Amino acid sequence: MNINTLRINGERLVARLKRLGTIGALDGGGVSRLALTTEEKGGRDHLVSEMKALGLAVAIDPLGNIFGTRKGRTAGPAIMLGSHIDTVATGGLYDGALGVLAGLEVIATLNDAGVETENPLVIAAFTNEEGARFQPDMLGSLVFAKGMALEDALEIVSIDGKRLGDELAAIGYAGSDAGPVEIGAYFELHIEQGPVLEDEAIEIGVVRGVQGISWTEITVSGRSTHAGTTPIRLRRDAGLAAARIAAGVGDLVREIGGDMVGTVGAINLTPNLVNVVAEKAVMTVDLRHPDAAVLKAAHERLVAVINAAAEREDVTLSTRMLADFPPTDFAPALVDSVEDAAKALGLSTQRMFSGAGHDAQIIAGLAPAAMIFVPSVNGISHNTTEFTAPADLANGANVLLRVALSRAMPINGEIA
Amino acid sequence: MNINTLRINGERLVARLKRLGTIGALDGGGVSRLALTTEEKGGRDHLVSEMKALGLAVAIDPLGNIFGTRKGRTAGPAIMLGSHIDTVATGGLYDGALGVLAGLEVIATLNDAGVETENPLVIAAFTNEEGARFQPDMLGSLVFAKGMALEDALEIVSIDGKRLGDELAAIGYAGSDAGPVEIGAYFELHIEQGPVLEDEAIEIGVVRGVQGISWTEITVSGRSTHAGTTPIRLRRDAGLAAARIAAGVGDLVREIGGDMVGTVGAINLTPNLVNVVAEKAVMTVDLRHPDAAVLKAAHERLVAVINAAAEREDVTLSTRMLADFPPTDFAPALVDSVEDAAKALGLSTQRMFSGAGHDAQIIAGLAPAAMIFVPSVNGISHNTTEFTAPADLANGANVLLRVALSRAMPINGEIA
Repeated sequence: MNINTLRINGERLVARLKRLGTIGALDGGGVSRLALTTEEKGGRDHLVSEMKALGLAVAIDPLGNIFGTRKGRTAGPAIMLGSHIDTVATGGLYDGALGVLAGLEVIATLNDAGVETENPLVIAAFTNEEGARFQPDMLGSLVFAKGMALEDALEIVSIDGKRLGDELAAIGYAGSDAGPVEIGAYFELHIEQGPVLEDEAIEIGVVRGVQGISWTEITVSGRSTHAGTTPIRLRRDAGLAAARIAAGVGDLVREIGGDMVGTVGAINLTPNLVNVVAEKAVMTVDLRHPDAAVLKAAHERLVAVINAAAEREDVTLSTRMLADFPPTDFAPALVDSVEDAAKALGLSTQRMFSGAGHDAQIIAGLAPAAMIFVPSVNGISHNTTEFTAPADLANGANVLLRVALSRAMPINGEIA
Repeated sequence: MNINTLRINGERLVARLKRLGTIGALDGGGVSRLALTTEEKGGRDHLVSEMKALGLAVAIDPLGNIFGTRKGRTAGPAIMLGSHIDTVATGGLYDGALGVLAGLEVIATLNDAGVETENPLVIAAFTNEEGARFQPDMLGSLVFAKGMALEDALEIVSIDGKRLGDELAAIGYAGSDAGPVEIGAYFELHIEQGPVLEDEAIEIGVVRGVQGISWTEITVSGRSTHAGTTPIRLRRDAGLAAARIAAGVGDLVREIGGDMVGTVGAINLTPNLVNVVAEKAVMTVDLRHPDAAVLKAAHERLVAVINAAAEREDVTLSTRMLADFPPTDFAPALVDSVEDAAKALGLSTQRMFSGAGHDAQIIAGLAPAAMIFVPSVNGISHNTTEFTAPADLANGANVLLRVALSRAMPINGEIA
């Protein structure tokens, strides 16, 4: 057969997403499958059952990462297609689930067509990608990639006060398998979770890497005084200093331009009353850029903005880094493969960086990795109204099929 | 005797303040006498008892305002010295209490010296000045001055869900007396509740009037999007627009200068998360100035700032006036009397406007009124650490004595 004409079954893919979406379904739409809850166990059980039905050999590692392996003619480096099936508390049907279930759809397509591959194919579902119940996020891939010791991960306590190791054992997913030892390539299909592809009417996002992220918490300390009786010259207005910082962040990211993004998403004033000058402001600054040097420069400008505001409003301040992730560049050869596959399928593409974190950036420390994005309607994600059109889901899965085959080397067919 | 050498008893005044401060006392200092609570009834009972001990005829009006009258030789216009004894939930010993208890101290001083006056002297304690339990504030004086119908006031529901009329009856202060019919002058001694007198080492603030107040609530509506995946050009960042407005308020009040004050004391972002562009911001703007025209101009500049921020950040907004009080000018002759009395006592003075609201501004609609300010340490008020030094308390009460006598006309003595 001609491998180039092989296509996944779009309707079956949508059915897979809808079926998983019934597990932890929320009234009115969306799902809640927080990591290692009863609902997520339901999702895991379903996934394992589907993997077995497709003939995959299922392995569970000590952090509960699930691997379903389709043997290759050789035992040589596995080609891994993965993502996660945990969700935020009010999540949608696509974030994470798409990458895993499109992997199953790729396997089903190969099974149906009787296509064997030289390298094994592994479908992976990593534990606690969202970080909504256990911090940090991307935990399963992090431990799998030796970025954190297993023992430390098992001791993490959830937002509801439960030890991760206990919760893992309680749902029966504290496995003893090692998982794939050698990975030749990792591909993750994911919804964009942003508005760019939809806005520019592009079908496939060719993800070059993940932006670096810097989160800074700033605490501004001023003096709580009466808004009516305190002359301006005697004020130490923490709220005004916070506003100047937030406006300054808006200005600096616009001046840097390009891929630079920056957000002051949280501001908390104390006492937060109409007629009292705020004595304290706690705020967060989220800066992201794909280039580490630009991100560093932005952070230096932030420090200047903060200091200028503090001096101007006669307040003191302290800062704390909440997160500081360097940018991740995906493997250029794999990125090219994604672009080539999309183009061969006649799909429009755009090279882009991911603004959100993904398991792929962690696996990139272990093996060549790349990602495929499909459009998110209105850029909405982490929300019950998250939606990607069936045609876009199928496009993404077909690109995934093609890049998987390009690396796993079909025995009984040819990639053009 | 020479009236000019008559002085109040500073120690006795402090003792009065401390004694009232035991009623509703909080552990660790300060008091809580929210209007018409059991604690405030205790304060009222004590005040009435003290008034009677000083020979005053006590009258309670239908809104619970308390009037203690010391007869004059004629029935003619009463000279009223007043304030309030309710407090905020965590208040101090001086706000309000000083004006009432210094009034008692004036009476005690006249009694001790055997000084009679032509006009009656009335010590007044108005109901619910703080507005901390029932809205609006300055309610007792407002109803007394016919600024609100009694029936409407009785229907007001407290923050704890109780009807004012019921609470008044429950504590036994729904009186049937009319209170003084004709008022020749009203004087209110009060702590400054601001830092100006202390900062400039001035002993007596000669209050010319009360600033006009404009409170605007602004609701900014943008779009909640991912802080990492949403390019700047596709954002509608309600938080950034709010920050630009708050910084703009800071700028405009500084540009206007002089007595202009403006504060953004409250900002609430939704969802208020580090990695989500805010979809909504609700903020307050407090603008104050003693000149109605300047206040109006400031408000017009605020509207321009708001509209510019909305256009720049592609957000929509709505505004709501939470308060809009015109400036009050006190009676020039009475203001002069306060200044003259302070100078005659060898005290340093500064003419100033009150930045906070007081019963005096309401009574000013009914009769000539003026206020005397004494320094607040660190400008702190509405706080358990509120403090005014005994010498300052005595200075204020001596000015009060002197201006009261200047209007009530002592029969057996002379004012210089």
